[in-house]
Amino acid sequence: MRSAAVVGTGLIGTSIALALRGRGVTTYLIDTDPEAARTAAELGAGIAGSPREPVDLAVIAVPPQYVAAALREHQQRELAHDFTDAASVKEQVQQEAARTGCDLTRFVGGHPMGGREQSGPLAASADLFHGRPWVLTPAPQTRAQTVERARNLAELCGARPVVMTQAEHDQAVALVSHTPHLVSSLLAARLLHGEQSQLGIAGQGLRDVTRLAGGSVELWTDILGTNAVAVADVLAEFSRDVALMVDTLRTLGTARKPEQDSASRDRLASVLLHGLQGRARIPAGSTDGAGTIRTYATAPGRV
Amino acid sequence: MRSAAVVGTGLIGTSIALALRGRGVTTYLIDTDPEAARTAAELGAGIAGSPREPVDLAVIAVPPQYVAAALREHQQRELAHDFTDAASVKEQVQQEAARTGCDLTRFVGGHPMGGREQSGPLAASADLFHGRPWVLTPAPQTRAQTVERARNLAELCGARPVVMTQAEHDQAVALVSHTPHLVSSLLAARLLHGEQSQLGIAGQGLRDVTRLAGGSVELWTDILGTNAVAVADVLAEFSRDVALMVDTLRTLGTARKPEQDSASRDRLASVLLHGLQGRARIPAGSTDGAGTIRTYATAPGRV
Repeated sequence: MRSAAVVGTGLIGTSIALALRGRGVTTYLIDTDPEAARTAAELGAGIAGSPREPVDLAVIAVPPQYVAAALREHQQRELAHDFTDAASVKEQVQQEAARTGCDLTRFVGGHPMGGREQSGPLAASADLFHGRPWVLTPAPQTRAQTVERARNLAELCGARPVVMTQAEHDQAVALVSHTPHLVSSLLAARLLHGEQSQLGIAGQGLRDVTRLAGGSVELWTDILGTNAVAVADVLAEFSRDVALMVDTLRTLGTARKPEQDSASRDRLASVLLHGLQGRARIPAGSTDGAGTIRTYATAPGRV
Repeated sequence: MRSAAVVGTGLIGTSIALALRGRGVTTYLIDTDPEAARTAAELGAGIAGSPREPVDLAVIAVPPQYVAAALREHQQRELAHDFTDAASVKEQVQQEAARTGCDLTRFVGGHPMGGREQSGPLAASADLFHGRPWVLTPAPQTRAQTVERARNLAELCGARPVVMTQAEHDQAVALVSHTPHLVSSLLAARLLHGEQSQLGIAGQGLRDVTRLAGGSVELWTDILGTNAVAVADVLAEFSRDVALMVDTLRTLGTARKPEQDSASRDRLASVLLHGLQGRARIPAGSTDGAGTIRTYATAPGRV
């Protein structure tokens, strides 16, 4: 790849552009807010503004609800030969792109699985996706060359391309990213009902489990709303587990008969054991020198 | 305080002993497993074995379900003039101590709010409680001198003494520690139902939110079982919020009418906003040089 364009110079877009520039790719920076594109350019991420000739690949790095419109606009302007995106939700974006008449032969959905707590171009870094998975979700009509260019993009960013269907991607992120984010927010929201003296004795564990709740409200409303069906499926099963646990604890709190108590204790222990086992299935993190806290699937674009 | 004894030389007990030794307090180390007490002694935490004369203060640093029995045993043996404990649950421990005939005038419940992921004496450190709250829960019959000695213990460990009633403590930890732990486990347990390819794209966010689920199953079954009523109350409210969110997402996923969709999006955004606001109520963490990850309320003792 010789030339690229990034549409949406937020954390994700600017990080991609920085990585591409570092690999010698001529990169153009486009944002509805020209100030954001200039900021990214000042950071060394590329050239603010549109190219005169179509570039090889354009990355639409805006929140899910804006991807289809931005793709259509920039395909009509012939910004690039091929297009990909960086949104956290794939199936609905693809459907909207089809509905609005985008050229789907020259588009492949993409989702670089990296991020961090801060947003905006100033938080960007060239190694944000180093060692991370980068999901590609080609549709039946996607040209092989488009997929190849997106794969090349992922590799230039130091990421590991992973091909999935759009539905597989959306179900996977519902399980490992979107539902955990929502659960973190729901748990953190309970803290509004606590006394300050209760909060005063909180510690690192509570900070860890509610860290995701610190994400952008606007962005995550978009992500969760766009992937609502898949997230609802995972959350419904979690909800059933939580309700059963309330019953188990009520029984434990009031049990008189030792055998009843013992069955409830076993149920509680079994959930904790399954949690330990479930946690063990999460792959070890990529080791990056910076030591910054990386939140997974902090979604693309500026919000 | 000139002399102390620690009963239960796990992570918490050994850390307390290391801090006391560092402040020149003669400290005895007692454990049902003599090997564990010897290990703690080799780490410089004190003298393995019982003192010949009663020490000033003994800390019962064993899991909640064993505190009352250990207190009774060591009060009968006149191990110390005054006693405290380090368990994560206070009301039920106090009731059991009363029921089994402990001398409650010379006992004050204590809960140092620090911990870490690893357990056992080898994970201990003298600064584990530096800058952390240390809850004391005196009963009406507790002697003033007993409370004073426990307060002195907390200060010698670099912690900040906080006085609460037992019920206040148990409700506070249910909100800020026990329910978050259980939610983390329930969420991590859902991962057992995922495909390995789904888990393969997980990242730091999922690791953060499920970190507490990595705690000891035996210890946390004890803690959550002992504080079952207070945890059930918080979890029941959380459960209601989760069930409502499932409905909201189902509506969002199937909505045809824009106004219906808009109301659901507003509900979703409002939960995320409340999560952000709830998270902002958690006090900033103590800054410790070691940079280790500290999990709050990893409970005392060896398991």
